[in-house]
Amino acid sequence: MPMDWDRAATLVVAASDVVIVTHLGPDGDAIGSLLGLGWALRQLGKRVTVAADDGVPENLRFLPGAEEVQTDLHDMAPDLVIAVDCGDRSRMGQVGAAALAHNAPLINLDHHVTNTYFGDANLVNPETVAAAEGVFDWLPRLGVEMDLQIATCLLTGIVTDTLCFRTNNVTADVLGKAQALMNAGAPLTEITQRTVMRKSYAALRLWAAVMPTMQLEDGVIWAKIDRQTRQAVGYTDNGDGGLVSLLVSADEAAVAAVFRERDDGRIEIGFRAKPGFDVSGVALELGGGGHVLAAGATVDGPLDAVVEKTLAMLRRAVNAGAAVVS
Amino acid sequence: MPMDWDRAATLVVAASDVVIVTHLGPDGDAIGSLLGLGWALRQLGKRVTVAADDGVPENLRFLPGAEEVQTDLHDMAPDLVIAVDCGDRSRMGQVGAAALAHNAPLINLDHHVTNTYFGDANLVNPETVAAAEGVFDWLPRLGVEMDLQIATCLLTGIVTDTLCFRTNNVTADVLGKAQALMNAGAPLTEITQRTVMRKSYAALRLWAAVMPTMQLEDGVIWAKIDRQTRQAVGYTDNGDGGLVSLLVSADEAAVAAVFRERDDGRIEIGFRAKPGFDVSGVALELGGGGHVLAAGATVDGPLDAVVEKTLAMLRRAVNAGAAVVS
Repeated sequence: MPMDWDRAATLVVAASDVVIVTHLGPDGDAIGSLLGLGWALRQLGKRVTVAADDGVPENLRFLPGAEEVQTDLHDMAPDLVIAVDCGDRSRMGQVGAAALAHNAPLINLDHHVTNTYFGDANLVNPETVAAAEGVFDWLPRLGVEMDLQIATCLLTGIVTDTLCFRTNNVTADVLGKAQALMNAGAPLTEITQRTVMRKSYAALRLWAAVMPTMQLEDGVIWAKIDRQTRQAVGYTDNGDGGLVSLLVSADEAAVAAVFRERDDGRIEIGFRAKPGFDVSGVALELGGGGHVLAAGATVDGPLDAVVEKTLAMLRRAVNAGAAVVS
Repeated sequence: MPMDWDRAATLVVAASDVVIVTHLGPDGDAIGSLLGLGWALRQLGKRVTVAADDGVPENLRFLPGAEEVQTDLHDMAPDLVIAVDCGDRSRMGQVGAAALAHNAPLINLDHHVTNTYFGDANLVNPETVAAAEGVFDWLPRLGVEMDLQIATCLLTGIVTDTLCFRTNNVTADVLGKAQALMNAGAPLTEITQRTVMRKSYAALRLWAAVMPTMQLEDGVIWAKIDRQTRQAVGYTDNGDGGLVSLLVSADEAAVAAVFRERDDGRIEIGFRAKPGFDVSGVALELGGGGHVLAAGATVDGPLDAVVEKTLAMLRRAVNAGAAVVS
């Protein structure tokens, strides 16, 4: 699909009140893209509101502008809405629905291969490593000058989505863009220390409690997190604290999954694949989405039935990948 | 100390038989610098022998030229010897001593702040993140063109010594150099997958078994690995599979220790500290050694007595660090 650069530019030029939103359970790229694009549009003289249903995770509050993120939008009538890092409209959450209530046009800036092209203008480039890279690529077309605030936010998006340049989509160009962001003042070490190199003790306690459930068979490695265990160790954050990324690093693994039972009994599944394998299909089949090497889905429980059903699908993904790799 | 560029160039121009050696127990930077510089000097028409007492670790054998690394040099009379990534002459091992037996001149290319300037020409730059970056900086002065083989070796050195750009000495320039190496064909993803992102399933099983022993108190986080547990999970490698580095990443930790009971009953202790704290003193007091942020010691057991004694020392290290940090 082509990039709607011209249509997006026209919408930005015509707008004076812009709401930017990002996805539920925002990560470093969601918040980095949100805030970075916010600073960019303010530089162009726009009134900008940035919003995310779940607010800013504590470890990302060092980012410039983090304190301005709204979690509840009402009585807003923007003349432009921009969604960053959202694969589909539902990911925009309640702030997205509120922002769109008055029929403002929508720009969809994303990098998920599963994106549904739900915008009036779509800037969706699955080859960018992060929505933040998409924002980086957009700025010169908007006439925005790189500055310290934008650079810090965008480098955070790139560093967190690539686990500090470790994912297989990192090209020479990405390193060049990161260099440009550092030259504009973005503090790489501070960003890595506050994001990819950081763990809470609660996350380590969670790992300690659930790693004994870990199993590896036929290239599929997985672990499960039930409600009782999560509550017993006092782990209150979303997700698995990075466990699924650890699991897929096992030499013997082709794909990894972590199954997490939520308080409402539904099961969140995080998937990772080694290069040459693909977990996006499994995620999609389960009603989720994501990338070839990193995807996720949320399904109805109970936990053990979900595990059993999903493992069979993952085994097929391993076989399909192995056929391509060999 | 200035860089002896001119003297080093004169030595290289005059030489036709060059031996390059690197340090005992070579890591990714040692082997990457060794092989990368080897390809560079071959491009200049030199006969090149590359050597390291301990050979090439299995996970680095994908590097071009790895199969040519010698572990025993005899009857060699080179007219130039180059040591890469060696802080002092003893680190060159027996291959270094053999290469120097006929009084060839020595170039010392390194990045350790503790380097003893033991060469006839010294190319020692502690601001480079890896010896491989030092080789990168040297090549244009030698008239060497970057190529795929050199680039792959040098990027491996940079990636392994920086843990894929995560250490606090990574500048915008380093990213620019990595970009140049990728543009010459160096496969970043393959390098990271084969080095910094790799774990054995046995190491994960070890973590699963010993993480429940983890405790955190007053900024000290620690875990212990007893013989029975190690044997039960089938973990046969040395060390802790990187566990102590994981522990120190806990937000609430200032210092970390992992206590490992060896088959002979002695206890190996690995220490890590967050910036601002210092574990080298504790290691030294226990008869070990190392750096401010990473150190180790081996002491007589039994395990629990060692833990108790060492924790008291670590608490003092936390207090001393906290006094400096605050």
